[in-house]
Amino acid sequence: MSGKIYIGVDLGGTNIKVGICDEDGKLLKTFEGPTGAEHGAEFVLERIAEYCRFIVAESDYEWDQVAGIGAGIAGFMDIPEGFVKLSVNLNWKDVPVKKTLEQKLGKTVTIDNDANVAALGEAWSGAGAGIPNLVCYTLGTGVGGGIVIHGNIYQGFSGMAGELGHMSVVPDLEAIQCNCGQRGCLETVSSATGIVRMAKDAVERGDKTSLTMIQSIEAKDVFDAAKAGDEVALRIVNRAAYYIGRSMAAVAVVMNPQRFIIGGGVSKAGEILFTPIREFFHKYTPEHARDGVDIVPATLGNDAGIVGAAGLNLPRK
Amino acid sequence: MSGKIYIGVDLGGTNIKVGICDEDGKLLKTFEGPTGAEHGAEFVLERIAEYCRFIVAESDYEWDQVAGIGAGIAGFMDIPEGFVKLSVNLNWKDVPVKKTLEQKLGKTVTIDNDANVAALGEAWSGAGAGIPNLVCYTLGTGVGGGIVIHGNIYQGFSGMAGELGHMSVVPDLEAIQCNCGQRGCLETVSSATGIVRMAKDAVERGDKTSLTMIQSIEAKDVFDAAKAGDEVALRIVNRAAYYIGRSMAAVAVVMNPQRFIIGGGVSKAGEILFTPIREFFHKYTPEHARDGVDIVPATLGNDAGIVGAAGLNLPRK
Repeated sequence: MSGKIYIGVDLGGTNIKVGICDEDGKLLKTFEGPTGAEHGAEFVLERIAEYCRFIVAESDYEWDQVAGIGAGIAGFMDIPEGFVKLSVNLNWKDVPVKKTLEQKLGKTVTIDNDANVAALGEAWSGAGAGIPNLVCYTLGTGVGGGIVIHGNIYQGFSGMAGELGHMSVVPDLEAIQCNCGQRGCLETVSSATGIVRMAKDAVERGDKTSLTMIQSIEAKDVFDAAKAGDEVALRIVNRAAYYIGRSMAAVAVVMNPQRFIIGGGVSKAGEILFTPIREFFHKYTPEHARDGVDIVPATLGNDAGIVGAAGLNLPRK
Repeated sequence: MSGKIYIGVDLGGTNIKVGICDEDGKLLKTFEGPTGAEHGAEFVLERIAEYCRFIVAESDYEWDQVAGIGAGIAGFMDIPEGFVKLSVNLNWKDVPVKKTLEQKLGKTVTIDNDANVAALGEAWSGAGAGIPNLVCYTLGTGVGGGIVIHGNIYQGFSGMAGELGHMSVVPDLEAIQCNCGQRGCLETVSSATGIVRMAKDAVERGDKTSLTMIQSIEAKDVFDAAKAGDEVALRIVNRAAYYIGRSMAAVAVVMNPQRFIIGGGVSKAGEILFTPIREFFHKYTPEHARDGVDIVPATLGNDAGIVGAAGLNLPRK
C-alpha cells in the first residue's frame, strides 16, 4: 500500500493499545498487549517500541511509511519536550518518553494527555470531522477535556487548556473537595465517581430509591435506575447534566465552539444524559453564543485515544 | 518615510478617532472628529473616509503606503463580511461597513467589535506585547473581552469568543437580570454599571457609608470611598473583584492564557481592584493553571481601540 501512515499509542495502566491510521484518520489496524507497568518505565517504553514495530510488520505497509508515532498518556507532562512529569496509573515520575522512543524507533514521537488526544481523534475522523473549532468532554472516572482549533489541540500557555473537569461550577455551600485542590469542580459532580458518590449519599441518608438494592453501585446503575423512572436516580442524573450544561454555557462565551462532543464511559448513558445537558445549555447560554452550536456524542468510542494519538504527528495547519 | 502604515478607526457614538500605526504597532498620529451619527450611516461612513484621507495627507506618509484600514465598533456584526447587524450607540442596523468603505477608499477594510480590538491593541504593542496567548478584560459600562492567540483575535464559531462579560458567575439566588437575557453575568456585578448599582442599593437600604453624601454616584466614587477606608465601598469593590477572579479561574482551565490584561475605565482604580482580583484568582485556580500566569493593567489606555483596529490588517500568522 502507498501513502503515509501514523501510529497511535493509547498507553493505559493495564494495557497498551496501538493502531495504524491512514492520512484521513481511518483506523486500519489495532493491536493490544499488556503494559507491564510493574516492571518500570524502561520496560514499558521497550514494549511500546516492540508493539509499534510488530503492528507495522503485520500490516500491508513498510516501516519507511511511518510519518510519526503519537502517544496519549494520563498524567502531567511537558508536551513540547515529550516528558511525563507524573502519571499516577503508570507509577511514573520524570520519564523522557519522546527522547527514549525516538532513540528506539528512529521516528518523530509526540505525546499528549489522554483527554486532549481523544478530542483530536474525534476532530480528525469522529464526531467533529470538518468542524474547525470544537470542545470535547470526556466523562469517565474524572472529567477530561480537549479543545481543537483548525485540526490542532489548543494547549494554552502550559498545556493546561481544556481542563474542563476543573471548572468550578458548584456553588460554595454545596461544593466538595476535588483532587486538584479546589472545591466544586465539575469533576466532583459529573464524573462517574461523582455520580456514584451522589448515589451512595442518597442511599445512606435513606432516600427512597431502587439503588438501595445494589451492592456496589456504578454509574451505569444510576442511569439504568433513572431510565426505569427512579426519581432519586433521575435527580442525580439531572444534577450531573445541569453542571455540564452550565460549564458549557461558560465555555460558549469564552471559546464559542461550533460543536461540543461528549465521550467517555458515562456518555454511553445516551439521551437520558444528553437531553438535559442540551436543555440546560440552551437555558443558560446567551442566544448569540448558542445559535448553530450543537452537542453530540463521540463516535469513535474507545478508539478515539488511538486515532487521536496517531493524529498528533499530522502536519500542523 | 518608508514602510507600510496601518490606519485604525475607533468608531464611537459621539466621536470618531483615527490613527496611523507603523509596522510595530507604534501609534504615529491621531485625529478625532465628531461622528454625526444623527445623520445616518452613509454620512458617518463618508466622514470616516474623509478622516482617513485627511490623517494620511497630514502625515509624512503617502496613501500608497496604507496597508489596510481597521475599525472597532460596539455592536453585533458579521466580522468576515464586515457587516454591522446592530449597533445601539450608532443607531445602526444592517450596515455594510466593509463594502462601503472599501469602495470609498480602495483599501482593504476589516472591522471587529470594540473589546476584541482593544485586546489586539494591547497584544500588539501594549501590556501583551510578545505574549502568544492572552485574555483581555475591558471593564467599562459593560464588561467586554477579547482573546488573542499568536497575534490574532480568536473569533470562535460565530464571532462570540471572548464575551467574558456574559460568563454566569453569580449564584442563582443572588443573580440579577443581564441585558443579554441571562442572569448573573459578570457584567451585572463587575462593570461600572454593576458597581454603581451595588452602591445605590447600599445607600437605599441605609448601610453606613460615605456614599450617602454623593448626589449621583459613579464607579470612581466607590473606589475613592474604598481607598479612604469606607467598609461598604470596600465590600462592593471586593465583590466586583471576586467575580472577576472567579471568572478568570474558569478561563484559566479552559484557555490557559499566559497573561490576563485588564483595561477600560474601571481598571484605572488600580491596586485596590487588582490586588483582590489576583488574590481570588490565586485562591480559585488549580496550581498548574495559575503558575506563571499574571494579571496586569492595560497600558495603551484610550489608544488601545485605535491601535488594535489598525492591527486588524496585519498579515495573519
